[in-house]
Amino acid sequence: MANAPVQRMSQLMAKTLRDDPADAEVLSHKLLVRAGYVRRTAAGVWTWLPLGKKVLANVERIVREEMDAIGGQEVLLPALLPREPYEATGRWDEYGAELFRLKDRKGGDYLLGPTHEEIFTLLVNDQASSYKDLPVILYQIQTKFRDEARPRAGILRGREFLMKDSYSFDLTDEGLAESYALHRQAYQRVFERLGLDYRICAATAGAMGGSKSEEFLAPAAAGEDTFADCPNCDFAANTEAITYELTPADGSGVPAAEEIPTPDTPTIETLAASLGVPASATLKNLLVKVDGEIVAIGVPGDREVDLGKVEAHFAPATVELVTAEDFEGRPDLVRGYVGPQGLEKVRYVADPRVAPGTSWITGANKEGLHVKNVVAGRDFEVDAYVDVVVVQEGDPCPRCGTGLKLDRAIEIGHIFQLGRKYADALKLDVLGQNGKPVRVTMGSYGIGVSRAVAALAEQTADEQGLCWPAEVAPADVHVVAAGKAVQTELALDISGRLAAAGVRVLVDDRAGVSPGVKFTDAELMGVPQILVAGRRSAEGVVELKDRRTGEREELTVDEALARLTA
Amino acid sequence: MANAPVQRMSQLMAKTLRDDPADAEVLSHKLLVRAGYVRRTAAGVWTWLPLGKKVLANVERIVREEMDAIGGQEVLLPALLPREPYEATGRWDEYGAELFRLKDRKGGDYLLGPTHEEIFTLLVNDQASSYKDLPVILYQIQTKFRDEARPRAGILRGREFLMKDSYSFDLTDEGLAESYALHRQAYQRVFERLGLDYRICAATAGAMGGSKSEEFLAPAAAGEDTFADCPNCDFAANTEAITYELTPADGSGVPAAEEIPTPDTPTIETLAASLGVPASATLKNLLVKVDGEIVAIGVPGDREVDLGKVEAHFAPATVELVTAEDFEGRPDLVRGYVGPQGLEKVRYVADPRVAPGTSWITGANKEGLHVKNVVAGRDFEVDAYVDVVVVQEGDPCPRCGTGLKLDRAIEIGHIFQLGRKYADALKLDVLGQNGKPVRVTMGSYGIGVSRAVAALAEQTADEQGLCWPAEVAPADVHVVAAGKAVQTELALDISGRLAAAGVRVLVDDRAGVSPGVKFTDAELMGVPQILVAGRRSAEGVVELKDRRTGEREELTVDEALARLTA
Repeated sequence: MANAPVQRMSQLMAKTLRDDPADAEVLSHKLLVRAGYVRRTAAGVWTWLPLGKKVLANVERIVREEMDAIGGQEVLLPALLPREPYEATGRWDEYGAELFRLKDRKGGDYLLGPTHEEIFTLLVNDQASSYKDLPVILYQIQTKFRDEARPRAGILRGREFLMKDSYSFDLTDEGLAESYALHRQAYQRVFERLGLDYRICAATAGAMGGSKSEEFLAPAAAGEDTFADCPNCDFAANTEAITYELTPADGSGVPAAEEIPTPDTPTIETLAASLGVPASATLKNLLVKVDGEIVAIGVPGDREVDLGKVEAHFAPATVELVTAEDFEGRPDLVRGYVGPQGLEKVRYVADPRVAPGTSWITGANKEGLHVKNVVAGRDFEVDAYVDVVVVQEGDPCPRCGTGLKLDRAIEIGHIFQLGRKYADALKLDVLGQNGKPVRVTMGSYGIGVSRAVAALAEQTADEQGLCWPAEVAPADVHVVAAGKAVQTELALDISGRLAAAGVRVLVDDRAGVSPGVKFTDAELMGVPQILVAGRRSAEGVVELKDRRTGEREELTVDEALARLTA
Repeated sequence: MANAPVQRMSQLMAKTLRDDPADAEVLSHKLLVRAGYVRRTAAGVWTWLPLGKKVLANVERIVREEMDAIGGQEVLLPALLPREPYEATGRWDEYGAELFRLKDRKGGDYLLGPTHEEIFTLLVNDQASSYKDLPVILYQIQTKFRDEARPRAGILRGREFLMKDSYSFDLTDEGLAESYALHRQAYQRVFERLGLDYRICAATAGAMGGSKSEEFLAPAAAGEDTFADCPNCDFAANTEAITYELTPADGSGVPAAEEIPTPDTPTIETLAASLGVPASATLKNLLVKVDGEIVAIGVPGDREVDLGKVEAHFAPATVELVTAEDFEGRPDLVRGYVGPQGLEKVRYVADPRVAPGTSWITGANKEGLHVKNVVAGRDFEVDAYVDVVVVQEGDPCPRCGTGLKLDRAIEIGHIFQLGRKYADALKLDVLGQNGKPVRVTMGSYGIGVSRAVAALAEQTADEQGLCWPAEVAPADVHVVAAGKAVQTELALDISGRLAAAGVRVLVDDRAGVSPGVKFTDAELMGVPQILVAGRRSAEGVVELKDRRTGEREELTVDEALARLTA
């Protein structure tokens, strides 16, 4: 190993703070700021200080190595992108306010790349002309920009962030499946090397389009995603992506629908109580406007509608809740008493729990009345079945029926089989073996490089502070000179010898800082090994402490060096 | 050395082109596109293909190593920056149309960082509180954005480009001088390692402000800068930065000024001819408007005024040429006959060649008349002496008087002693040893990382194409399999063995491509060593060619391996 540098804390730009920053809500935000790894420059916009930059570079290196290992070719695309290709795929508008748009001095429209499907598609269109040029995997590690509505949680959700994005280009669906599998394996290796605890979860494609998609989620309290894990089988999915099969019931024995007076029942709860039935026996109908058209959404009375899922279903149309004004001139819509039966002018979307043959108590479309024995498929038709309810702890696993466990998690990776969406929009063909053009099929794959740093901080931190896995830590050893001259001399001597052996050393050689503060800072900064030149320095005895386990041992200098260079 | 990867050209995204791109004017632009290193994404916005990315990464690594060697600490600041600090230093406006400005979803003003003095100043204000925290050198290698009026010359002058920028923070002028000297040395090492021919030239500070400044210029026909080199002493300067000392003449024997009729002399040339004097005996007075106020600029009649220098002198005021309308209501200004004598309401700026005591023929401020024997300091006063003429080949060296040589060059580095301009604007103090606040003094230093790639291409290319120095080349050896199965087999075998020894290999294993095309591509791509598995492959004999010298040798495989792994 080559000579590694010694970082002297007396010179290092890494001011630690005793208190959490006032605006910090999540652990990684608090600790990364307090330990001097990052600083806020503007809302959702961060500066990486020297220690933070080292961790970031370590993550970047691991990602690069694993992308190279699956034959990925590294390129670097610009962040400043012209409008036209994003116009061609519709994303210039679809991205909404999340896209940073700007004009150049000539008034031309540009955007700051949130992700680069369009530009990679054009690049391959320029570079590949024949089936012989494919398959190919291209990747970049690049700064991305997204104007998040609520940039929060420190670097977990920034408006400028570092991402590895890659794109695969194949001739066939089988080829795409293979490129996808290669990425899946590479991501597993990356996250294992990073020391992250993660789950691979079924996911929705969202604004990206395409078919199959999985997320790599790192369980953490600070996470913005919720995923469901089956305690019995290997099912795991983002709750946004859970879908149930439609299981029709036998409703043939249900008596005819019958109106029942229900005065003083303004809510599902009061209705259920007055009728002596569980809320789950009632059918709740939520009205929304989809690009201005009123649509009804039906779910069991005990469940909440997940508006994100409704929006995803109708995207790119916009979805709004109805207001009192929307009922004007609509005698067919009786507020508080909507039922799907007889709602002829309104599209009806229902959760699969409202399967054909199931029987419900629901609004009678008349003031003060409900109807019982309303059977789906007999008394009303469902225009589309969509999984729109908020998934709850204990909901059945779609695969084996066991009650699901829910957890918060951070999305650290996402892989997509895009198919031909972008190739169609931008006309990406190559000449096939038979001389005829073949439309290319694509995949797109992302790892949040800066976010992975935050996820690691979240998962590995303890009461004392950060606690990095060895491969990403900003140094291998944190040498503390307790304060006296003999201690500082020994600390610097050991640091030099470790560095000469290729060990990355951070040495706390600050003058006028108490040993207590130095120990606290060492714990906070989270380098895996802490070596203290303290009380017994004159005898050549030092203390070696494992940051994670807290185990400490007194060793001679030679023993310590042997241990750390092993 | 670790196992290096083998890049197979059958899979590599690096399409070569036979013809120069239609819009390419300069050599590096033509060759980097033709050899498959870069592609244009938008005006002044470029994509780095795999080979280009490798060269870029090599330059980046060299810069990083040399910055680390002078104790620089690497950080990473955002590109998306808030308006306020740039407002505080005045650069939000001063940068003019070159600054990319944008709004976020809440209407907040942001810019894309063209350079980061303000943000580093604020960062150090946050991180350093005491004299003990300084000096410090911080650097980053980061994408920068400048909305160039005429993005041209490929990656030589892009609107998005990669730059190493660093900033030094010192307590004293001596400290700043030392940080500056460290950078100067580091830059020399960087450019020497890169294999660039360069000169260190005196420079102007421009929009950056500050005092002392030098540029690292790489001579190249495609350069946008002109520098003057003294063939006799070691003087070298950007022509924009050349200044002459004022050398007063003895004008005591000059007769009194005398008006002379000069009909039909619309130009300096016709005037000089009709009077039988050289143009250099006449004084030309150019009128400009400085923030609306008319100012006269005086230079010898045979010299041109460099408007850039006039603008630099009056910055941040704007400078415009006068129009016919500006003469209305100004009987003191007679168009075509302006002379400095008696021009009382107009500020007069002159080149040092118009030194006190020099005598001139100039306009009489009356239609059809000039004046001779007009002596500077006797007949008119100069309000300010400024070097405003366009420097010409043969002008005297300001140091030794020898005639200067002029050359075109590319600016690859620039170092500035900023002093306290930014610290004053943003109130950057630390507590001094005596407990009193000390205003910090700063330096700012840049290397154009992507531009250095273009400069290298410009300087090292030959008739056949690119020709990289070893340390930046995308591979060490370009192995060509001439085409037959035995040749391809041998080429791949050699490639594998070279890679196992840590040699970076690009192997042309393409099927269906003629040997001639492969040889041409190898020359074009410019890897330093070309190994051909050709005619004598079956005997185990290959040809090794030095890309630069063109020397070729037949060697056995073992000899070739020994040579290349030495």
